[in-house]
Amino acid sequence: MVTRSLATLIQRGSSEGRPSLVWHVIGLSVAVAGLGVIFSGIVDVLDGGPDASTLLVLGLVFFFIGAGTWWETAVPSRVRIVDVFVVVTGSWLALAVVGAMPYLLTGTLDRFDDALFESISGFTTTGATVLHPIEGNSAGILMWRAISQWFGGMGVIVLVVAVLPSVGAGGMDLLSAEAPGPTGERLTPRVRQTASRLWVVYLGFTVLLVAAYVVAGMSLYDGVAHAFTTVSTGGFSPYNGSLGHFGSAAIEWICIVAMFIAGGSFTLWYRLLRGSAGPLLASLEFRTYALVVAGASTFTLLAESGTTGIDHDALRGSVFSVLTIVSTTGYGTVDFGAWSDASQILLFFLLPVGAMAGSTSGGVKLVRVLAVGSFGLRETLRQLHPRLVRPIRIGPSVLADDVANRVLGFLVLALAIFGAGAVAIAMTGVDVVTAFAASATSLGNVGPGIGEIGPTNDFTALGRVARGVTMVQMLLGRLEIYPVLLALAAVPGLRGRRS
Amino acid sequence: MVTRSLATLIQRGSSEGRPSLVWHVIGLSVAVAGLGVIFSGIVDVLDGGPDASTLLVLGLVFFFIGAGTWWETAVPSRVRIVDVFVVVTGSWLALAVVGAMPYLLTGTLDRFDDALFESISGFTTTGATVLHPIEGNSAGILMWRAISQWFGGMGVIVLVVAVLPSVGAGGMDLLSAEAPGPTGERLTPRVRQTASRLWVVYLGFTVLLVAAYVVAGMSLYDGVAHAFTTVSTGGFSPYNGSLGHFGSAAIEWICIVAMFIAGGSFTLWYRLLRGSAGPLLASLEFRTYALVVAGASTFTLLAESGTTGIDHDALRGSVFSVLTIVSTTGYGTVDFGAWSDASQILLFFLLPVGAMAGSTSGGVKLVRVLAVGSFGLRETLRQLHPRLVRPIRIGPSVLADDVANRVLGFLVLALAIFGAGAVAIAMTGVDVVTAFAASATSLGNVGPGIGEIGPTNDFTALGRVARGVTMVQMLLGRLEIYPVLLALAAVPGLRGRRS
Repeated sequence: MVTRSLATLIQRGSSEGRPSLVWHVIGLSVAVAGLGVIFSGIVDVLDGGPDASTLLVLGLVFFFIGAGTWWETAVPSRVRIVDVFVVVTGSWLALAVVGAMPYLLTGTLDRFDDALFESISGFTTTGATVLHPIEGNSAGILMWRAISQWFGGMGVIVLVVAVLPSVGAGGMDLLSAEAPGPTGERLTPRVRQTASRLWVVYLGFTVLLVAAYVVAGMSLYDGVAHAFTTVSTGGFSPYNGSLGHFGSAAIEWICIVAMFIAGGSFTLWYRLLRGSAGPLLASLEFRTYALVVAGASTFTLLAESGTTGIDHDALRGSVFSVLTIVSTTGYGTVDFGAWSDASQILLFFLLPVGAMAGSTSGGVKLVRVLAVGSFGLRETLRQLHPRLVRPIRIGPSVLADDVANRVLGFLVLALAIFGAGAVAIAMTGVDVVTAFAASATSLGNVGPGIGEIGPTNDFTALGRVARGVTMVQMLLGRLEIYPVLLALAAVPGLRGRRS
Repeated sequence: MVTRSLATLIQRGSSEGRPSLVWHVIGLSVAVAGLGVIFSGIVDVLDGGPDASTLLVLGLVFFFIGAGTWWETAVPSRVRIVDVFVVVTGSWLALAVVGAMPYLLTGTLDRFDDALFESISGFTTTGATVLHPIEGNSAGILMWRAISQWFGGMGVIVLVVAVLPSVGAGGMDLLSAEAPGPTGERLTPRVRQTASRLWVVYLGFTVLLVAAYVVAGMSLYDGVAHAFTTVSTGGFSPYNGSLGHFGSAAIEWICIVAMFIAGGSFTLWYRLLRGSAGPLLASLEFRTYALVVAGASTFTLLAESGTTGIDHDALRGSVFSVLTIVSTTGYGTVDFGAWSDASQILLFFLLPVGAMAGSTSGGVKLVRVLAVGSFGLRETLRQLHPRLVRPIRIGPSVLADDVANRVLGFLVLALAIFGAGAVAIAMTGVDVVTAFAASATSLGNVGPGIGEIGPTNDFTALGRVARGVTMVQMLLGRLEIYPVLLALAAVPGLRGRRS
């Protein structure tokens, strides 16, 4: 396995070289990104595209610079929590810049900020785009877009969880802080084993989906590109018409199933594959997820069928649109901009929620919503019974008070960033609905919006300043806010005590 | 003092009659409402209006039914918390129905739900209206609208705080639960004294404001009507053009100062009048309040002065609009519907916030926002220092964990009700912006919206079903959610243990 040999290499690397966790991890990240660029270059060679040599050279440069940096550095013997927040944030910033280079050097995008936007939107699996139109660019570049999303979907888990075993006991706390979702459920004491299991599921899922797409009629290229962006809930497509380009009900149903899986917890899928369906079926979050998808699909189907009637197309359109939002994939196949205000407002509320913790989806995650709901109920009952002792529960499992507080803190920060972002975007001159939607879809790593940015994910309607705001929001959303804020604590004078 | 003699009467009443807290308090509320209707009738007599006899008869009927009910009942020896939630919610429902009768029986409004809307909007000091146009109705009816807001502004404090001393020790907890704002700061052990002090400040403030309005050029009638709706942060006006009807800069500046005072804590104003300015100036909430008003006024002034230039009119317009939103008064004097999207989105975020706890304003209250901010900061720092002990603070004062949790629970409930309300309103067919604004302005008891309902507070653009939703939200917002939800606990089978 790639992960396992990487992990072994890391162990070796960590025993030599100059101690610097930041450069160690950034080096590894850049090397992995380089491999992706090389893959895009090979694709462009096979396609006979114009960007083949640029991509191959660029990929090799990234790989050797990254691998060299990683090899020359080592994990320090003592790692403070604040350092790891710096590492996570720093690696993502490095990836963002590295990922922008292919667009810039092939001339696909002329301006650095546009290229950076496309890169950040890719790695964070948001799926918003400034390529306008998308078609007409080389096969290699369009594959790089898809690969960046594939890396981003499980990427942080690979990079950080695979690297961190050598950090020691302190690493566990921070893993549970960084991993998507509030509960460190899947993080058993054998962290590296967990990470490689998740990676196996992710890779296997991708391969199966490529096969399914190809059987349903896609070319191998299209199958790979769309599988990459479906399993990562990213939503980039090489076509202007997104998945609707194929006009195939079979392909859309395959995508619906795949988006549903990608929005589920990969730990639970792993257990299901090992023959134990119990944890999946017992999960309140999973049942809520299924209920939200079914309920919202029914709602939009009924709300929109007044004009068209309920038929197979309407059903598929409703389920597809709801799942593309809830799983935060964001394929712009159905023009829900033409839907009724009630359906749009429902999608608007689903935008920031996201699907399950431990999935590749973005957003707040359903488990946090459930925790907050349980908290709200308890506080209501406490008005009646001031001495009531009632833990915060998610189904049968009890949430410790400090975890619940962290969830609430996350909600507060997310709301503040959402609001500040919407005001900042509106100040650039776009209308209120577009500003709200752009803020929500960026922070939630969804992609499509409502209003001017619509279901096509096309962010060119926003100005450069507004897109700058959304770039920050996409990064904050993908890293779930805390690590980015806490990296600021590394600024001298703000340094906290060791922990 | 009216309050003091009422309180003495209550003490007497409570020792006789059939024990029933619900009917005791509802009776008193209806009697007080009857006095208000009689006052409106007298105004109509002086004006020679057509509704004089209807209002006088109706007022007397309410007064005698209410006083009789109150006199025949008594406070039970033992009161459970759940009972008092039922009492508070029940009294407000009774007031809503009673307050609708003048509109209905004078033929001002034909439909019961319209009359109920106007009544609820009045008592909750929201200020949304279905009178279309407002002018042309009798002086008595327009005065009743203003009186209902005046009762609503301090009303609950009069009705409940003045009644509750006989409830005993258990009443204190629930007073702090029911009173606007999360901290029971002003609720000294001598509850009745506190209530009557607040009442004195409120009454004195009203009388002074009448004088100021009249000196600035209003008739006595207009002065009284507008003073009632300014000090209560209600926002009803007998004129279609609201306060802008007078076209007087002096009147608008007087109103600006009065709205600022009405949005401040009446406890702090009382202390200031007693010569101690320290508590006011030391209050972080007050300083935040002043900063928000100044900052938002400057922002809108700069944002809107691009076309008109900064002059005295623009300055007054900005400050007026910001204060009418922040204090949740809602006079529709400036057409901010014509403002830029950035300014509108700023007002949109100010809509649900409200001003200070202990004021007559609606919304979440700034103190809660400060508490939530302190909580968010602590949870962020805790990611870095998991064993960090850091209380939640509002300036120098520390918030107990259970109070902080109650505040967070309130925020969660408010968000859920805001979202559910917006979806429900949008389902009736109005556009997204209008639906969001209607939900926020109703729950925050503000009045004006954005979009179709605009700064005029005219809710006739919404359908009957949508207005039904906003009625529930106005009541939930005025009672700060918990009491209404907890009144449901009185349903048999849901009854909790005694406390």
